[in-house]
Amino acid sequence: MDNMQDLYPSRTKRKIDMFERLDPVVYGDTTGKYKGPLSSEELQSFDDNGFLFFDQFFSEDDIAEFRQELKRLCEDDSLRGWDGVIREPNGDEVRSVFEVHKISNCFNRLSRHPRILDRVRQLLGSEVYIHQSRINYKPGFKGKGFNWHSDFETWHAEDGMPRMRAVSCSIILTDNNEFNGPLMLVPGSHKFFVPCVGPTPEDHYKNSLKIQQTGVPDNDSLAQLIDLAGGIEAPKGPAGSMLLFDCNTLHGSNANMSPYPRSNVFFVYNSMENRTTTPYAANRRRPEFLAARDHIPLTPIEE
Amino acid sequence: MDNMQDLYPSRTKRKIDMFERLDPVVYGDTTGKYKGPLSSEELQSFDDNGFLFFDQFFSEDDIAEFRQELKRLCEDDSLRGWDGVIREPNGDEVRSVFEVHKISNCFNRLSRHPRILDRVRQLLGSEVYIHQSRINYKPGFKGKGFNWHSDFETWHAEDGMPRMRAVSCSIILTDNNEFNGPLMLVPGSHKFFVPCVGPTPEDHYKNSLKIQQTGVPDNDSLAQLIDLAGGIEAPKGPAGSMLLFDCNTLHGSNANMSPYPRSNVFFVYNSMENRTTTPYAANRRRPEFLAARDHIPLTPIEE
Repeated sequence: MDNMQDLYPSRTKRKIDMFERLDPVVYGDTTGKYKGPLSSEELQSFDDNGFLFFDQFFSEDDIAEFRQELKRLCEDDSLRGWDGVIREPNGDEVRSVFEVHKISNCFNRLSRHPRILDRVRQLLGSEVYIHQSRINYKPGFKGKGFNWHSDFETWHAEDGMPRMRAVSCSIILTDNNEFNGPLMLVPGSHKFFVPCVGPTPEDHYKNSLKIQQTGVPDNDSLAQLIDLAGGIEAPKGPAGSMLLFDCNTLHGSNANMSPYPRSNVFFVYNSMENRTTTPYAANRRRPEFLAARDHIPLTPIEE
Repeated sequence: MDNMQDLYPSRTKRKIDMFERLDPVVYGDTTGKYKGPLSSEELQSFDDNGFLFFDQFFSEDDIAEFRQELKRLCEDDSLRGWDGVIREPNGDEVRSVFEVHKISNCFNRLSRHPRILDRVRQLLGSEVYIHQSRINYKPGFKGKGFNWHSDFETWHAEDGMPRMRAVSCSIILTDNNEFNGPLMLVPGSHKFFVPCVGPTPEDHYKNSLKIQQTGVPDNDSLAQLIDLAGGIEAPKGPAGSMLLFDCNTLHGSNANMSPYPRSNVFFVYNSMENRTTTPYAANRRRPEFLAARDHIPLTPIEE
C-alpha cells in the first residue's frame, strides 16, 4: 500500500473509538470561483446536519423523462450479463443499474445539469467528477431496507478515497412517504468517523450491495450519534425532490411496505482534489462500475 | 374435522379470490346490555377502518408499573425453558412472553380493566374471554418487522376460531414514532377475507412467530386493498396509547431503526359466542399459550 498516512483507519482487528472528522464539511462559500446558488443559511444547514433536501427540485416533465429512461435501462437486453446490473436475489427483476452517467445520454446530461453541479461544486469548493452513479428500483412490498452506514467508510476502505470531500445526490422519481422505505439520516453524524471492526472479505462488494455486514458501525456509536442528534430524519416529498448529503452522513432505510415501487437516481460527486488512490483497507480495488478510475472534471450542459 | 361449514377457507392448494366478510364488524351499540363508553362516531369509525386509536389512554404511572412488570417477566429465571418465552434467533434476549394474563397478576388485572373491557364488550356485543395474550419487546436496532397479515386467518386456520368476532388490544409502553417500527394497518381491509394458498406445515407456529410464510396474503390482493383504502396508516403516540383493532384488519410492521427499544402489551379478546373449536386448516391445535382452551368470561376488576 503506497498511500500516505491513513487518517481514517477502519476494518481493523480491534475496535477503535469514533473520533471527530478531520476535514471541513463545506469547502466553498457564496463568493469566489466556486460560488453558487446556495445561501449562507443553506450552507450552514448542510454543515450542521450533513444534508439538504430540495422539495420538488425537478418538474413533472423532467421526472417523466427520467422514469422512462429508467424503465428502458431496466429492460435493456444488451445489458444482460453485465455486472453493473444488480437483480433481486430470488428473481430476474432489476434492482440497480450502475454507471448510468456513462451508458445513458439522458442521465449523463442530468449528472452535468448546472442546477446540480453549481450546488455540488459550491459545497466542495472545487471541480468535481463522478465517483459512482446508479439508478435504484425498489419494487412494491419487495424492496428490502439497508442498515445504518457511512458511504465514506466504504469508499475510503475499499475504493481509496483519501478524505471527506464528496457529496451524494439522490433524485427521487416516485413520491416518498413513511411506508415505502425512504432514506433515513442521522443529522450531525457526518462530523464523526466511526471506524468499523473486521477485515474486508475478498470481493466484498458482491454481497455488500445486497446486505452489508462488514463496514457497519457498532450499535453503541450509532446510539450515541442518534442521541446527540435528538433523533432520526427522513426527508419526504413528491417525485422530483432532491437530497444532497455529505459522504460521511450515516443513513439507512427500511423495507418498502407499500404496494408502490420506489425509484431514484443517485450520483456521487467527488472533489478533483480528493481523487481515489489504492484502497486503504482492502486487497483489491472494486470494479470500475462501483468506483470510477477515470477522474475527469464535469462540464455543465447548456440548459 | 367435525366443524360445521367452513365460511373462510384458507391454506388451500389453489388460490381462492378474496371475498367480502360474512360477519358484522361492530356487534354492540350505545344502548342495551353491552352498551359502553364508545360513541356512535367511534363505533362507526371502527366499523369503517377496522381500528380505533386512543392517544395516551393510560397514565405515566400506570405505564411505569407495566414496564416494570415487563422487565421482571423478561428476566424471570423460573420461565426458562418454557415455550411461551420467545427469544431472539441469535441470542438470549427475550422478544415475547405469552399468557401474561395467567402468569402475571399485574397483566391479569390489566386485561380485566373496565376501561378496556367495557369497550371490547361493546364492540363484540357479548361477554369475552382471552384467546391470547403477550408482551413484546423489540430491542433498538435489532427488532425485525412483520409482513402484512390478518390474525383471523391464522386463528381460523390453526386455532379453529369460527367467525370474525374478536378484537385485539395493543397498549404501547414506549413512545411510537415512524423510526421504531410502529404497527401499520390497512384501513378497511377487515371487510374482506383473503384466502391464503398452501397447506399449513407441521408445527408451523414454531417458525411463524419469527417469520411468517404460510398464511400470508398474496401481493395482488394486498395492493388492491391498500389502493381501496387510499393508503396505509400507522397510528403514533406517546407511551400509554392504546390501539383496538378488528381480528381481520391487515397489519404489519417495519424494523426498529432507532436505538430505543419498543415494547407493548397485547390482549386478544374473543367473543363467548365465537369460542374456538378444532382448526379449520391444520392437523393439530397450536399450544395453549398461543390459543386458550379454557373459555372463561372475563370479569372486570374494581378500579
